[in-house]
Amino acid sequence: MARKISYIFLCMNVIPLLAAAASQACSAQSDAKCSQTGEWNGEFFPGIPKIKYEGPYTKNKFAYKWYNAEEVILGKKMKDWLRFSVAFWHTFRGTGVDPFGAPTKFWPWEDGTNSIAMAKRRMRANFEFINKLGVDRWCFHDRDIAPEGKTLQETNSNLDEVVKLAKTLQGNNIRPLWGTAQLFMHPRYMHGAATSSELGVYVYAAAQVKKAMEVTHYLGGENYVFWGGREDYQTLLNTDMEFELDHMAKFLEAAAAYKRKIGFTGTLLIEPKPQEPTKHQYDWDAATTTNFLRKYGLIGDFKLNIECNHATLSGHSCHHDVETARINGLLGNIDANSGDAQTGWDTDQFLTDTREATMIMLSVIKNGH
Amino acid sequence: MARKISYIFLCMNVIPLLAAAASQACSAQSDAKCSQTGEWNGEFFPGIPKIKYEGPYTKNKFAYKWYNAEEVILGKKMKDWLRFSVAFWHTFRGTGVDPFGAPTKFWPWEDGTNSIAMAKRRMRANFEFINKLGVDRWCFHDRDIAPEGKTLQETNSNLDEVVKLAKTLQGNNIRPLWGTAQLFMHPRYMHGAATSSELGVYVYAAAQVKKAMEVTHYLGGENYVFWGGREDYQTLLNTDMEFELDHMAKFLEAAAAYKRKIGFTGTLLIEPKPQEPTKHQYDWDAATTTNFLRKYGLIGDFKLNIECNHATLSGHSCHHDVETARINGLLGNIDANSGDAQTGWDTDQFLTDTREATMIMLSVIKNGH
Amino acid sequence: MARKISYIFLCMNVIPLLAAAASQACSAQSDAKCSQTGEWNGEFFPGIPKIKYEGPYTKNKFAYKWYNAEEVILGKKMKDWLRFSVAFWHTFRGTGVDPFGAPTKFWPWEDGTNSIAMAKRRMRANFEFINKLGVDRWCFHDRDIAPEGKTLQETNSNLDEVVKLAKTLQGNNIRPLWGTAQLFMHPRYMHGAATSSELGVYVYAAAQVKKAMEVTHYLGGENYVFWGGREDYQTLLNTDMEFELDHMAKFLEAAAAYKRKIGFTGTLLIEPKPQEPTKHQYDWDAATTTNFLRKYGLIGDFKLNIECNHATLSGHSCHHDVETARINGLLGNIDANSGDAQTGWDTDQFLTDTREATMIMLSVIKNGH
Amino acid sequence: MARKISYIFLCMNVIPLLAAAASQACSAQSDAKCSQTGEWNGEFFPGIPKIKYEGPYTKNKFAYKWYNAEEVILGKKMKDWLRFSVAFWHTFRGTGVDPFGAPTKFWPWEDGTNSIAMAKRRMRANFEFINKLGVDRWCFHDRDIAPEGKTLQETNSNLDEVVKLAKTLQGNNIRPLWGTAQLFMHPRYMHGAATSSELGVYVYAAAQVKKAMEVTHYLGGENYVFWGGREDYQTLLNTDMEFELDHMAKFLEAAAAYKRKIGFTGTLLIEPKPQEPTKHQYDWDAATTTNFLRKYGLIGDFKLNIECNHATLSGHSCHHDVETARINGLLGNIDANSGDAQTGWDTDQFLTDTREATMIMLSVIKNGH
Repeated sequence: MARKISYIFLCMNVIPLLAAAASQACSAQSDAKCSQTGEWNGEFFPGIPKIKYEGPYTKNKFAYKWYNAEEVILGKKMKDWLRFSVAFWHTFRGTGVDPFGAPTKFWPWEDGTNSIAMAKRRMRANFEFINKLGVDRWCFHDRDIAPEGKTLQETNSNLDEVVKLAKTLQGNNIRPLWGTAQLFMHPRYMHGAATSSELGVYVYAAAQVKKAMEVTHYLGGENYVFWGGREDYQTLLNTDMEFELDHMAKFLEAAAAYKRKIGFTGTLLIEPKPQEPTKHQYDWDAATTTNFLRKYGLIGDFKLNIECNHATLSGHSCHHDVETARINGLLGNIDANSGDAQTGWDTDQFLTDTREATMIMLSVIKNGH
Repeated sequence: MARKISYIFLCMNVIPLLAAAASQACSAQSDAKCSQTGEWNGEFFPGIPKIKYEGPYTKNKFAYKWYNAEEVILGKKMKDWLRFSVAFWHTFRGTGVDPFGAPTKFWPWEDGTNSIAMAKRRMRANFEFINKLGVDRWCFHDRDIAPEGKTLQETNSNLDEVVKLAKTLQGNNIRPLWGTAQLFMHPRYMHGAATSSELGVYVYAAAQVKKAMEVTHYLGGENYVFWGGREDYQTLLNTDMEFELDHMAKFLEAAAAYKRKIGFTGTLLIEPKPQEPTKHQYDWDAATTTNFLRKYGLIGDFKLNIECNHATLSGHSCHHDVETARINGLLGNIDANSGDAQTGWDTDQFLTDTREATMIMLSVIKNGH
Repeated sequence: MARKISYIFLCMNVIPLLAAAASQACSAQSDAKCSQTGEWNGEFFPGIPKIKYEGPYTKNKFAYKWYNAEEVILGKKMKDWLRFSVAFWHTFRGTGVDPFGAPTKFWPWEDGTNSIAMAKRRMRANFEFINKLGVDRWCFHDRDIAPEGKTLQETNSNLDEVVKLAKTLQGNNIRPLWGTAQLFMHPRYMHGAATSSELGVYVYAAAQVKKAMEVTHYLGGENYVFWGGREDYQTLLNTDMEFELDHMAKFLEAAAAYKRKIGFTGTLLIEPKPQEPTKHQYDWDAATTTNFLRKYGLIGDFKLNIECNHATLSGHSCHHDVETARINGLLGNIDANSGDAQTGWDTDQFLTDTREATMIMLSVIKNGH
Repeated sequence: MARKISYIFLCMNVIPLLAAAASQACSAQSDAKCSQTGEWNGEFFPGIPKIKYEGPYTKNKFAYKWYNAEEVILGKKMKDWLRFSVAFWHTFRGTGVDPFGAPTKFWPWEDGTNSIAMAKRRMRANFEFINKLGVDRWCFHDRDIAPEGKTLQETNSNLDEVVKLAKTLQGNNIRPLWGTAQLFMHPRYMHGAATSSELGVYVYAAAQVKKAMEVTHYLGGENYVFWGGREDYQTLLNTDMEFELDHMAKFLEAAAAYKRKIGFTGTLLIEPKPQEPTKHQYDWDAATTTNFLRKYGLIGDFKLNIECNHATLSGHSCHHDVETARINGLLGNIDANSGDAQTGWDTDQFLTDTREATMIMLSVIKNGH
């Protein structure tokens, strides 16, 4: 049997230059375009052409200086080494809010609602953005692309409507790097999803994952991600860690079974993070998560999605966690961001440290083809 | 003239037992009380009597076990050593939101608006709470107690209306430990207030401080606090730190002058914090802030408000920063909270570590009377 | 046979009161006793009686106030919950040196040599200390109790001679909590022992472990410990982490086989530590080490020895790592020390925080018997 | 009046390539050279020529690729922007010891003694090294260059003898960037020097600084450095921080007076460090030290020597502390080393991060000419 080919995908969060250009562009637009009632006319990023590779000496700000998609390095095209993906939530749902401040970032096409019409408008902006960047992958949480309804049925229906549009907009060349279910924002998840102390929450989370996996499959997604933002504890005085881990394992086991049932062939990924929002997340780092997968016999069904800033918050360099995943046969994906060496929370910045990036690529290259 | 007496006030954030009781009590109330349109009838914390000292062996959950206000220790009553103050925003405006989650805490009397009527209702809840606790101080940010209007004039008018009610509710025995201006939440302050790169923002912040100091004076406040949440930088590549510090000094100098002009005799306090929301706050810790005050000749006009969790985030124990403030003659107030030793952000928990509390009291006692 | 009973032993590093008393006592002794040539006459800790439990109100400084060995708590004697052990190296080989300072601690019986005679004298001091404390366990590294010779043969012979004395001094009631091989101090181990890049070093380390296990067995030791001080990397640029972990697994596999061969029934323990002296130790924390044991099929042969200060350096509370070991079925022993919450290295202090100690005991009690 | 010119000197710790070459070379040498009894014949670094600038594309490993001493950048030669200095202790006294390991680095000319003959031999090695590197500055601690004697008189005499040789070897072009007194290694300094609780220690430290300043002056040193390795506390339970700071101020005041008395025109520098070896050093960071200098009226007499790894241990980036020193008018010198972002102690590595180095140079350039 041929060894399963495992590609690495660097998940790019947002393209600040384009974003800046767009928000400037807006103020130059007609009122009709910025209207909150009418539909968005014309381009979302007007005046921005398709971004091309022009080499390190170009004066054009809207050009790739180093990323030359078709250039072959070590026998493989750059676009195959670096499968960039636009993260929907960072690019289109981030508002610049922080724990001490109100939103500071406003896209001109946002009308202040969380309606389905608004969701569709955003999705069109997303695909214009992707096409102008010339990348062919995106990633999303269910709740970021479509609004939650009053019932699960209504919520799923909302999701279907937006996903149908996304499917059309994807065309033949674009597909999700991954999809996921957002299991941390709604108050019902305040004590976790798969490790919630409430049975109803556990069941609701399962239903949400089921649907999110279905739409990821429908859209041709390559991976499905689990990030356990609240699968964790604040204190062991009121938490039975063993019991909660048992529950989480059952949850993931069921997810893997459902994947097989529906014929989804993408990879299931777990994304470790040590803490934030809570004190101690169960998927602390690559080694901790690997131990969990081994203990519960899940290691054949899951790989890891290493986020650099999560790795540094857990006390490791990013390349340590990437390499740890690799030598355990679990390197599935990389969220190649960066934190701040003097700051104790996830700042989720672009990775601009060429030394660290080089170390990460060493593991990617070793992980092979 | 006798040496100025410098008391230490422990600023208590919230009383969880009472809070829990109240939210349970709500579900037992009549619809009329929880109505969003009608006014709140009766008590906000029904069924909760005034809290009294009953000693360490009481079975009554609504009693002080150790805090015996009238007990004399080292020649001074406990209530004079520990001048507890209810923090309005933590107790009445906190929603349980975190960077990954929606609000989870809802007071039954909240109607979902930020109206003046709502502000007044909250203020009555605040004073019922204070009276039931049997403490005689509270502290507030201007924007927490009254809504921002469309103009500064309207905003100030809103504040006046609520403050007038607070003055009445205070009666003869209750007064603010301190007031302050919230200069970090509104988008205009995204790059700071006294260190903003926009002149208009600097001026607006000055106007806001002027008004906040006036109402603190009107309410008989003992201190006025400056917390520079966004007086800081993200990177020195785009920030002239010296220039910004010069601006901040001018701002504080003007505030001290205005204090003298209006005859406010309370103490001006600066509250150090190393970072969060931004990378590097100028008032990093007690020593850094003291250096700033010395450099700009402001040391006679300001003292420090040491928050324990801020001290630990800056790499010190809380008692180190309290003692540093004391030996520089600047110990003005203590926000006696606690962080988590393994967590890199402000968790703002109650201080329950008796060892650390003892070390802090050592400095308080040395600071004397 | 009934399920193997797994007790928890708190490894006590040193008794500072006794130590202080002893060094004071020395100056009152005759020259003959402090002579570097003659043998030590009489007691090492003269004037110190056997320490007894006298309750919390005793004025006697040489008494247990809380530790009442025979008192039954939750169906078990305190001495069975808390199997204190004197750590030979901390108590008798520590010199007070730090990276910036020369030795500051000198026992009066030390003659400045690392001779066998000196080693025996120390061993007698050790057992006087143990007997006066009234504990019945001790722990040691091979190189701390006997000097290294010019050849392995000579070194082993030195060890045998001192161990023979220790066996006699142990009597019927005292035994090692554990023994271990010191595989980090000698320059040959500068790049590790089981993960050294030099074959000869790997083999030498194996021979050293073989001998250390034999003497631990001979002395009736209950456990044998592995602490991989230099089983780690400084940079992945020159280290093949996977290759080194394979080597370490083979090493431990051989150790487990040898244990069975010689009929040693004690437990093999691995002690996690994240870093120090090097950047990244392979046994980072409980979860990482557990993953390693699972991956290489060693989980039936090893348990964990959790050191609190190691746990906190890895970003966890001590009780987190104790509980992690427990729910993986691997809680073998606890080095119940404490670090400093603001200091980034192992300070190895006594655990005096009753809150943390209580959390640890919760796991110990759950681990049961 | 000409503005006082303030140059910045990057203190280079050691040149690993040369060192490696030298230790290899040794094994190829005749027995006579490695003899412990005879004097060292010939070169210490045989086969190594004088290092020259050959540009980035040279294949010669013993060449500067980027450092072109005579090249003019922004109106100043590189050698005037970057006044490299060989640190005597790191280069010639470091042994590769760490808290868990014995020495691993042995220069072939070391004979195992701390004799004056050995001290002179090392000094000749130092100047061969400096001349081959083509730099013109070095820095030293008194005790690193000459052995401590039985009395202060003998110690000073030892120092004089070695310094006299150094003076000769310096010639006309080489001089100390700075000298200092080592006030932390000897057991007498276990509780500090200027903040020791023993009067005799305070006096001894003063005598040592007096002599060290004299020899720095004699050698034409440009600066004199104070690093308070043990001017700090372990716990405020047994330390009167205010009292100790008063003592330290008096000590420094006396040092400044003595400087004027002997006509030494070099700059007095304080080197901040937050902790290690002890919990809390008084010169925590640039801002803390600046506050101290302002409080005690010493700000005209001292500047700061910023060590990058010390800055990062205190929670700042290096360039933050450099810039803080600059805007307080106190940027005197930089020890441009680097730590490890995931390690909580001083690793004292070469600064190889071009991003951080660029940020530091920004402050250096602003500090001017």
